[in-house]
Amino acid sequence: SGRLAPCMAVLSHWGSAIAKIIGHNVRASNRFDPVVNMWVYEEMIDGRKLTEIINTEHENVKYLPNHKLPANVVAIPELVDAVKGAKVLVFVVPHQFIAKLCDQMKNHLGEGTIGISLIKGISEGPDGLKLVSDIIREKLELDVSVLMGANIANEVAEEKFCESTIGARNEANGQIFKELLQTPNFRITVVMDSDTVELCGALKNIVAVAAGFSDGFGLGDNTKAAVIRLGMMEMVAFARLFLGESVCSETFLESCGVADLITTCYGGRNRRVAEAFVKTSKSITELEAEMLNGQKLQGPQTSADVYNVLQKKDMVNKFPLFAAVYQICFEGRLAKEIITCLQNHPEHM
Amino acid sequence: SGRLAPCMAVLSHWGSAIAKIIGHNVRASNRFDPVVNMWVYEEMIDGRKLTEIINTEHENVKYLPNHKLPANVVAIPELVDAVKGAKVLVFVVPHQFIAKLCDQMKNHLGEGTIGISLIKGISEGPDGLKLVSDIIREKLELDVSVLMGANIANEVAEEKFCESTIGARNEANGQIFKELLQTPNFRITVVMDSDTVELCGALKNIVAVAAGFSDGFGLGDNTKAAVIRLGMMEMVAFARLFLGESVCSETFLESCGVADLITTCYGGRNRRVAEAFVKTSKSITELEAEMLNGQKLQGPQTSADVYNVLQKKDMVNKFPLFAAVYQICFEGRLAKEIITCLQNHPEHM
Repeated sequence: SGRLAPCMAVLSHWGSAIAKIIGHNVRASNRFDPVVNMWVYEEMIDGRKLTEIINTEHENVKYLPNHKLPANVVAIPELVDAVKGAKVLVFVVPHQFIAKLCDQMKNHLGEGTIGISLIKGISEGPDGLKLVSDIIREKLELDVSVLMGANIANEVAEEKFCESTIGARNEANGQIFKELLQTPNFRITVVMDSDTVELCGALKNIVAVAAGFSDGFGLGDNTKAAVIRLGMMEMVAFARLFLGESVCSETFLESCGVADLITTCYGGRNRRVAEAFVKTSKSITELEAEMLNGQKLQGPQTSADVYNVLQKKDMVNKFPLFAAVYQICFEGRLAKEIITCLQNHPEHM
Repeated sequence: SGRLAPCMAVLSHWGSAIAKIIGHNVRASNRFDPVVNMWVYEEMIDGRKLTEIINTEHENVKYLPNHKLPANVVAIPELVDAVKGAKVLVFVVPHQFIAKLCDQMKNHLGEGTIGISLIKGISEGPDGLKLVSDIIREKLELDVSVLMGANIANEVAEEKFCESTIGARNEANGQIFKELLQTPNFRITVVMDSDTVELCGALKNIVAVAAGFSDGFGLGDNTKAAVIRLGMMEMVAFARLFLGESVCSETFLESCGVADLITTCYGGRNRRVAEAFVKTSKSITELEAEMLNGQKLQGPQTSADVYNVLQKKDMVNKFPLFAAVYQICFEGRLAKEIITCLQNHPEHM
């Protein structure tokens, strides 16, 4: 038919919220094939296969209970089957799974397939860091866009209004993904500064840890706003250091920048655990066990990856907030020294 | 001595917090005369003159009770006496008083006097709007800088950490004011985009009203972040419309931009009253009477001034959030239509 067949790899709450949107949108569009292949990791739930539950009850009981998925979203347990004939790939899995997933689908993709990554986070690489989209590009040799923004999954699933940012390298492909993903309550801006968009989604979690420390000490609204802003300035500086001078200041005014940072610094779990860190004197690992069922918090981990890069480039002293988060989480530096590092920030020299 | 004599015009809580900083700083600096003349409006408090209380007890019992002012801050009831010999003028009065104040001091200033305005807000002018700093420039013919930022007065007085932005037209003068005002817990960046800095301090209050509506409807973190960001994009666009293309995107990443906006949209009274407006169905005037002892809220008033400009320039439809705030506050438009205007925002076209 010439229509683009969408395929999603979904292993998260967030991915399931997006499946709802995509399933709805492809039915209303002439551009896309109306069936969405959704690969999910097969598992047994109360004696039934997850894919079977999704395909009969149209509910992802594992990742998005109590929300109906459109019936044209078809769960498929075998990745190779799911990607067959697909032209538009949507990746929404935890970042540690992406390399293996790409290896598995590598020889099964058709010509001209394009992809978008909704994965927030960053991986280790030879320079200390590697963008998730670059892993996909290298393994699958396709054009990859990214989508990031102030998108707490629950609220997206409930169809509360929000915005998002698509970072594209190929503008036409960025527009295809905008058509696939935009709804009246999920509004999208496409920018061409893709790597910055993606980096924002990882770095914001470091800032949220610092904001949580500030909350833990009851430092007030001015201080918290200063932590968020200085954190954003370090995000800008780090993006320039890591990606080069092509990084655009305006990108930080998009939803992926300032808006996601605000949401994460007021509502997210990095903030919450960091506040508890100050108030309880427990370690991050203990708090992860208690508050997150042992899941790893992204902010501290990303701060370690970033600190590694800064050390190699001898730039630690230009990023006092990022460095302090790492040192407080992992090297026993006192959390209250977050203040000292604000007072001596190079932004005010 | 060649030292610069500072003089403040103070009619606010905020001004009194700043008097504390300036009094302290001039004693530690060789650049300034160590005595700070502080004009205050004379009034009787429990049978004593306010200036007399300040000069004997070193406390501004009217505007900043329970905080000691440095003894070198001298309250003076006559404006003409206060400005005599002054080289550095600091204006911290409600914006409706500034024109008259300038008229009174006009013929009493020496050569080379410079000024800084800490006044948030905007006045009416022939084009619908006039910057407070421009009123001072025109009436007194001196170089005027501005200071704006995420600076809730209470927290500044308590010496909690915060940042601020000086907008200067003359960089050397901007640095003089930085030396006068910066402390370890009040950190300053100087930028040359002075008019944008000043405009931020007025426009943010319109956005805070929209954020308050969003809170009133319980719309969640994603939506609130979107309101704040789209509000900021309208601030950028309005600054370009009103000031021209010299407006710099980076200025919105300073404390006067994103940080002040965050503080105001989470903590300020415009947000609080707007939330009550949605929840109670009372008018803004009624809520001002109940919640603010009849003081006028800046956000609705500024939205009216801005709407006036937008109508004259036939640009209302490019600023749906600003326009909706005005129409909801003054023309009976339903507050829930803030959502409709987000859904159709030109940023996502």
